[in-house]
Amino acid sequence: MRTTPAVRFVGGATGRWRVERSIAVRGSPLAPVACLAHVETEGSAALDGATWVLHGVRSNERYVTRDEKTRLLAPQQGLGRSQATSAALIPMSKTKAWWELSQDERRAIMEERSHHIGIGSRYLPAIARRLFHGRDLGAEFDFLTWFEFAPADTPRFDDLLGALRATEEWTYVEREVELRLTQR
Amino acid sequence: MRTTPAVRFVGGATGRWRVERSIAVRGSPLAPVACLAHVETEGSAALDGATWVLHGVRSNERYVTRDEKTRLLAPQQGLGRSQATSAALIPMSKTKAWWELSQDERRAIMEERSHHIGIGSRYLPAIARRLFHGRDLGAEFDFLTWFEFAPADTPRFDDLLGALRATEEWTYVEREVELRLTQR
Repeated sequence: MRTTPAVRFVGGATGRWRVERSIAVRGSPLAPVACLAHVETEGSAALDGATWVLHGVRSNERYVTRDEKTRLLAPQQGLGRSQATSAALIPMSKTKAWWELSQDERRAIMEERSHHIGIGSRYLPAIARRLFHGRDLGAEFDFLTWFEFAPADTPRFDDLLGALRATEEWTYVEREVELRLTQR
Repeated sequence: MRTTPAVRFVGGATGRWRVERSIAVRGSPLAPVACLAHVETEGSAALDGATWVLHGVRSNERYVTRDEKTRLLAPQQGLGRSQATSAALIPMSKTKAWWELSQDERRAIMEERSHHIGIGSRYLPAIARRLFHGRDLGAEFDFLTWFEFAPADTPRFDDLLGALRATEEWTYVEREVELRLTQR
């Protein structure tokens, strides 16, 4: 029995989301596609003739403390809000050096020095997000982060990305692609 | 490119390890088998006619601090020692309640209160161990732990298991099977 639900994001000619922009922020790009489908919410039709498929799994939290979890959950509104017709998918992998760090070292870089969780929480509830893990699956990217927001909150989302990319944690990013999406 | 190496342990009629004993410590047992093969070190022949196959992946560490890592690595001798002709495989899953805890709560139960890492380190270098993760793969067990030791160290291994099962952490175990093995 699978307890951590799997996801597939499919790039190709069909899907609920139109790809407005695809940027290789670091490392090699993904092949250009017109549309993105999320198989688990839209069905598997897009898998036929897909240009690429990205795999991930929604797993347990790896860094968040109970206090942070409580603070994050309070203002959260979840995915699928009707006004959230803009989205982004950020596939990302971290360096070997990151993965060889111990848990306390990764936590210290991520939160005590880079304030990753704190930064994300400042943009709640406007920017909803969900993290998927790919590394243990042997997937192309270590992480897939999915974001949803109202078009009017696009400048806030740009701010969020800028803040995260200015951190010490981000120096451990080996590859990052940014896909900006709007609902078709 | 897969960065976290996958493993498959195969129960059946062939393989390097003879199954001396298979006990369902908690939850349902595994079907009885005569032998166990570790595909990644022995080749895939045992997959034909396997009774069961257990999947896991060697991933990054989730709890160990830098200090603990240093202390664990110093006395470690690794797997495959010629005198280590006894082994054990412990497939195990934890409860939903465990996985819903935050990282700091799991760490507190595991080490500050249950001394899991400290207990394991007391048995080094005699008992070599390696942990594999199965949960995010959708595998049958959340964890597979592999142990190797000299036959003369069997009582010490029994001690180690007893100590781990007496902890608060172990109350979160939903299913555990213990396979005791000797090299054929």
